[in-house]
Amino acid sequence: MRAVVLHQHGGPEVLTIEEVADPAPGPDEVLVDVAATALNRADLLQRKGLYPDPRRLQPEIPGLEFAGTVAAVGTRVSMWSVGDRVMGIEAGGAYASRIATHERQLLPVPGGVDLVDAAAIPEVFLTAWDALVLQGGLTSGRWALVHAGASGVGTAAIQLAKAIGARIAVTCSAGKAPACRDLGADLVLERSPHDWLADARAAVPQGFDTVLDVIGGDEVDRNLQAVATKGTIVQVGLMGGGTTPVNVGLLLAKRATWVGTTLRTRPIEEKVGVTRRFAAEVLPLFESGALRPVIDRVYPFEQIADAHELMEANANTGKIVVTVGPG
Amino acid sequence: MRAVVLHQHGGPEVLTIEEVADPAPGPDEVLVDVAATALNRADLLQRKGLYPDPRRLQPEIPGLEFAGTVAAVGTRVSMWSVGDRVMGIEAGGAYASRIATHERQLLPVPGGVDLVDAAAIPEVFLTAWDALVLQGGLTSGRWALVHAGASGVGTAAIQLAKAIGARIAVTCSAGKAPACRDLGADLVLERSPHDWLADARAAVPQGFDTVLDVIGGDEVDRNLQAVATKGTIVQVGLMGGGTTPVNVGLLLAKRATWVGTTLRTRPIEEKVGVTRRFAAEVLPLFESGALRPVIDRVYPFEQIADAHELMEANANTGKIVVTVGPG
Repeated sequence: MRAVVLHQHGGPEVLTIEEVADPAPGPDEVLVDVAATALNRADLLQRKGLYPDPRRLQPEIPGLEFAGTVAAVGTRVSMWSVGDRVMGIEAGGAYASRIATHERQLLPVPGGVDLVDAAAIPEVFLTAWDALVLQGGLTSGRWALVHAGASGVGTAAIQLAKAIGARIAVTCSAGKAPACRDLGADLVLERSPHDWLADARAAVPQGFDTVLDVIGGDEVDRNLQAVATKGTIVQVGLMGGGTTPVNVGLLLAKRATWVGTTLRTRPIEEKVGVTRRFAAEVLPLFESGALRPVIDRVYPFEQIADAHELMEANANTGKIVVTVGPG
Repeated sequence: MRAVVLHQHGGPEVLTIEEVADPAPGPDEVLVDVAATALNRADLLQRKGLYPDPRRLQPEIPGLEFAGTVAAVGTRVSMWSVGDRVMGIEAGGAYASRIATHERQLLPVPGGVDLVDAAAIPEVFLTAWDALVLQGGLTSGRWALVHAGASGVGTAAIQLAKAIGARIAVTCSAGKAPACRDLGADLVLERSPHDWLADARAAVPQGFDTVLDVIGGDEVDRNLQAVATKGTIVQVGLMGGGTTPVNVGLLLAKRATWVGTTLRTRPIEEKVGVTRRFAAEVLPLFESGALRPVIDRVYPFEQIADAHELMEANANTGKIVVTVGPG
């Protein structure tokens, strides 16, 4: 098959495509012909050598999500048949024309969604839903605050919040505010030079029940000021830096919860658990049209380095998809 | 009745006893003849003007817990009769010979516990149980880490952890280590100049499932290093200071939860909820002898300033109780 193999870490130029052996699916696994994959921030970190696949497979093939068709099934597989349209998340290996994964980690592609669009669904919708709903306790009526509203996770979060009857504020740069409004955000807070915290407090004085933060750094203190009494801050990333001063007194006075989360390092039973709940609770919202993948641009496999450059420039609204196709 | 009234804030000398009017119980409330009260760190802060009763009652009578007998009941009270032995927590007003409180916030004094000893139960056992079990998820088999193991909360936490089949490590000064061991702590980590973190890691390399911290400050970073993957840090106090640098990357990598909590600022429905669960799940452990109040010293009401001085010197192991008696 064809795959991006990292022989060294560095800039987008290290993303070279070559021929490698197909993965061999185990008895509970499914071999998928990958139609398309999509980019995640973690891919940029892995390319730079900062976020290795915890399984340390060789050769090192990055790529966390995919959509395609079932090419073969292991002897104990019961959920899927050859030709089924599937999508999913793996800890790596999705920048390839074939990938093997546990059958219970796979999701059916919702009816009416083509395979290229489907590649933009798994990571951001599962991350946003897990963070907002499962970990952050967002329900109808409550207020969410989500940073980077025009990012992949942000565009998924806006749609999810509205689909379950919650209210949502997002932060974003001024140029991306219209896109966030069009997706349904109740409140769009333009970042720097605007003081989003003052604007947020004026609009939602009781504070936010659930804060989803991919940034960290300077946002940490503002999150603690913006969260409601008994609210939850879900830390999904740290694009803005790691160690930062924290006013622990605010956490105490508000009886707030601050939880860190990642999908990739979870053990298989947790990944399967969240995937099956997502299938039951979120996939029907794609069928009904309440949710749709938001795609900024689609690149052919050979231009995957250009796709990385676009994400690094923070120029995208929604997902960057890469078509892969037969090896 | 007799009560400590704060006419000004300051040192222990501001704690003067005078005659004031009895509180008037509402229809759902119970008037209690207070046999004894007990000290909490929050009392020292309130005395200094740093932690006011959120109800802002006048005159300002401090005191968060009490044990005594029912003197009178409101017209809608159904759980209690005059003469019943009761104990409880209020947001203030317990440094007095009478206190009024909602009937559903009261607990029966366990059989075999006298009223003076009972005053040492409510705050520390409810705080430790709520923090370890309800908020921290401690269960049989799991490991807790509790700072200030010889404090009131610490001595309650050790007994509670053992009573439910959990394992517990505590930090304390060297002089208090034997008392913590005698109470059943599985691991006693002497603080400064010892590096308790290194000792803790050597003994419990997988990390602690639940960390109960009343200190904050420099312990915050060590807590994040000591907590297990998917573990929970429950921040109950900040004796060591408020704003501190935090490595948010550790929260993320461990998928840990950090939750702030206080009892006093909770609305009545939350206070009643936790009190009734405590009655059902913890009071039987006093009846069986698995739990007992740990009392360092008992002072008469007239010497309550001396009691404050003892707590300020960190010289106590367990609770400092003050007998009150009839007004």
